[in-house]
Amino acid sequence: MSENHALDLSTNDGRCTRERGPMNEPRFPVDGDRLRQDIERNAQFGTVATEDGRGRTVLPGTTPNQQARESLVDQLILADLTVDTDAVGNITGTWLPEGCNPEAAPVAVGSHLDSVPNGGIFDGPLGVYAGLEAVRALQDADVSPTRPIQVVCFTGEEGTRFADGVLGSSVAAGLLDTDVALELSDGSETLREALQDIGFHGESRLDATDWHAWLELHIEQSERLEQLDVSAGVVTTITGTTRLHGTIEGTAEHSGSTSMTDRTDALAAASELILALEQAAQDAAEPAGTAVATIGELSVDPGVVNVVPGQVEFSADIRDVDQAVIDRLVDRVNAKLKTLEADRGVETTLECSYDVPPVDMAPTCRNALHDAGDVLGIETVDVHSGAGHDTMQIATATDAGLLFAPSRGGHSHNPLEWTDWWDCAAATEVLTEALYSLATGEADT
Amino acid sequence: MSENHALDLSTNDGRCTRERGPMNEPRFPVDGDRLRQDIERNAQFGTVATEDGRGRTVLPGTTPNQQARESLVDQLILADLTVDTDAVGNITGTWLPEGCNPEAAPVAVGSHLDSVPNGGIFDGPLGVYAGLEAVRALQDADVSPTRPIQVVCFTGEEGTRFADGVLGSSVAAGLLDTDVALELSDGSETLREALQDIGFHGESRLDATDWHAWLELHIEQSERLEQLDVSAGVVTTITGTTRLHGTIEGTAEHSGSTSMTDRTDALAAASELILALEQAAQDAAEPAGTAVATIGELSVDPGVVNVVPGQVEFSADIRDVDQAVIDRLVDRVNAKLKTLEADRGVETTLECSYDVPPVDMAPTCRNALHDAGDVLGIETVDVHSGAGHDTMQIATATDAGLLFAPSRGGHSHNPLEWTDWWDCAAATEVLTEALYSLATGEADT
Repeated sequence: MSENHALDLSTNDGRCTRERGPMNEPRFPVDGDRLRQDIERNAQFGTVATEDGRGRTVLPGTTPNQQARESLVDQLILADLTVDTDAVGNITGTWLPEGCNPEAAPVAVGSHLDSVPNGGIFDGPLGVYAGLEAVRALQDADVSPTRPIQVVCFTGEEGTRFADGVLGSSVAAGLLDTDVALELSDGSETLREALQDIGFHGESRLDATDWHAWLELHIEQSERLEQLDVSAGVVTTITGTTRLHGTIEGTAEHSGSTSMTDRTDALAAASELILALEQAAQDAAEPAGTAVATIGELSVDPGVVNVVPGQVEFSADIRDVDQAVIDRLVDRVNAKLKTLEADRGVETTLECSYDVPPVDMAPTCRNALHDAGDVLGIETVDVHSGAGHDTMQIATATDAGLLFAPSRGGHSHNPLEWTDWWDCAAATEVLTEALYSLATGEADT
Repeated sequence: MSENHALDLSTNDGRCTRERGPMNEPRFPVDGDRLRQDIERNAQFGTVATEDGRGRTVLPGTTPNQQARESLVDQLILADLTVDTDAVGNITGTWLPEGCNPEAAPVAVGSHLDSVPNGGIFDGPLGVYAGLEAVRALQDADVSPTRPIQVVCFTGEEGTRFADGVLGSSVAAGLLDTDVALELSDGSETLREALQDIGFHGESRLDATDWHAWLELHIEQSERLEQLDVSAGVVTTITGTTRLHGTIEGTAEHSGSTSMTDRTDALAAASELILALEQAAQDAAEPAGTAVATIGELSVDPGVVNVVPGQVEFSADIRDVDQAVIDRLVDRVNAKLKTLEADRGVETTLECSYDVPPVDMAPTCRNALHDAGDVLGIETVDVHSGAGHDTMQIATATDAGLLFAPSRGGHSHNPLEWTDWWDCAAATEVLTEALYSLATGEADT
């Protein structure tokens, strides 16, 4: 990390000095150092001690999440934004530029602050604070967009508590009922209770259909931009995601006295499934495809050394830009479970717990982001997103665009996650320029 | 269960009425109903609600274990035995028959009261209470063995807390130092603290080398006796057990944005290991071998739906009557991990956490048990034990014998574990006759 810290952002206001930085003088120079301070301040909440990189665990509705939210609110207020929290904890900071039409549909920008367990410090926070930095850059440049601008932090994007992900943005997009969302439980408390506990249970519903457009800056979480040496990727399509939750029931028996022929081992059966799904996804991804499938969650019951596993619960995550490929992989899981029932005598269940089809980004937003890169002399490239994002939900309610900053080594969802500060600043320059363009009608033509 | 409860044990004092019961009038008739009441009373402690069968969770040093121990002590006192608890919580009830030589080396009999999580009601308690019932039967018959008899309950046989198993008997056999045992921790408290909490931390050390002989009645935990329709199996050899604890380190990455070719999935690697070990054990067990291998414990880190598994921890349990076969299976695990490192880029560790060689039972004790069956007209057969037992440790310190009662369907370590009450009574008749024989010198010749 010291390599990054050594970057002298303090003397160049965080503006990019590398070749891939802006070649042209920005109209609205962002302060990369201020952005970095925001992200580093946020990284303190839920921080996880680790030898490599910087980790944090910020599940929605927990104390670290409360601290991260309160710190964001402080920064929104410092920037003279009007702060509001909706019923499911989505936070907005609204800027009404002098001379704007306060009745005009706002342009919104942001991301999320929650993380996976032991996740990285950029996934989410970069987009929230880049949105705020864009507003501050416009304020500093003393320009007045004609539309209000809202900086947004959505609740529970990661799907590690209460729901399988994009919780707050689903409510904002009208895809999930507020009351249903509030009753979601992690087994010990509901979202409503957790939000009440941390003081972020508001009353209204943030409604994304009210927005003129939406932009999100996010880390790429793969290596394409790094390999291309490009600071800004403009997303064309977000892959669809299907999540399956299943059980494999064998018989828990004494590991010493149950012969190999008499046992029905749920974990051995699950192992066959894991390898079959891995192989199917590898086949589907050949030669340069976008399909991925993962069994990331698996628990063994009773899970002790001298008992043959009696039950396994697992979750599978399957993604592609092509819904037909996703469907084929789901079929493969079903077929393999049937085979395991026949061959090994296990009983199995499988249900779909989450299902979002592939989503295309709005041409208006994609063009605004590419044009911004052109104006700034920052190269932009088209990429697809393998990860789901709040933008996926918001795209069903309004024009939406998603911008990627490079992830070093492609690492994400772990403490090795890293985006160079100059790339954060460069991508935020692109975001700011596009935001201004969308908020002034420059991009409407 | 109602089928069992319907057995009218109350009218026949629990004595066996089936064909495989005693064909000859026992010298020391056991009270099968009293034994059943003991086991059913004990089954209340740590009881687990379940649809099928009767489960209990009695980890050593917990409140259910305290209740089970206190109830045993009550019954030992009711039978006029002198109760003592040693430093590691081993409980003894000593009977000095009138006219015995109090200085003679005692014959000891017993088992354990702890269980695996959600285990059955017979594994351990049958042996403890059969030992007590044997003493009561001898008392009721008004006979006086020439040696003292000790009824024993060992601490922590199952290896689910503090140690990998046979904790108390290892100390009694002199294989594990008392102070080392007392400092074993489950991560939150030591054995010493747990025993102090439940009031079973005594001062002395129970020493199995002081014993003339040792007998244990245990459920078989496999189907051989049931298939043979025999109530009593005399163990020839207890299989050796080697337990391995390992880790497989991959890279935790975002499940959506990490392509199939870029990921290092620790769980997929573990799945290969699980199937390879299963296959190797199946091969080693062909055609009618005794080898078994199990991966019963496996945890995934971070274990969330949208992260490629970064690390897997697992425990393997490998057993056979032949140490060379065990060694070959351990070699197979090592070789597979090396292959996974080369093929998948994971890093692995493996250590042996527990290693007990196969143990032969003492001919004196085996003969005493077979002779007892002959005297009673109860058929006995030679079997091996696939499960480790306290007797395995005690056999290193004194002559030891192990008797099996049939397990219905071979089920054990789960609530389906069941031994018919008539089999409990018949096996206890054999135990009682052999115990008397060993304690009077009848078996010394």
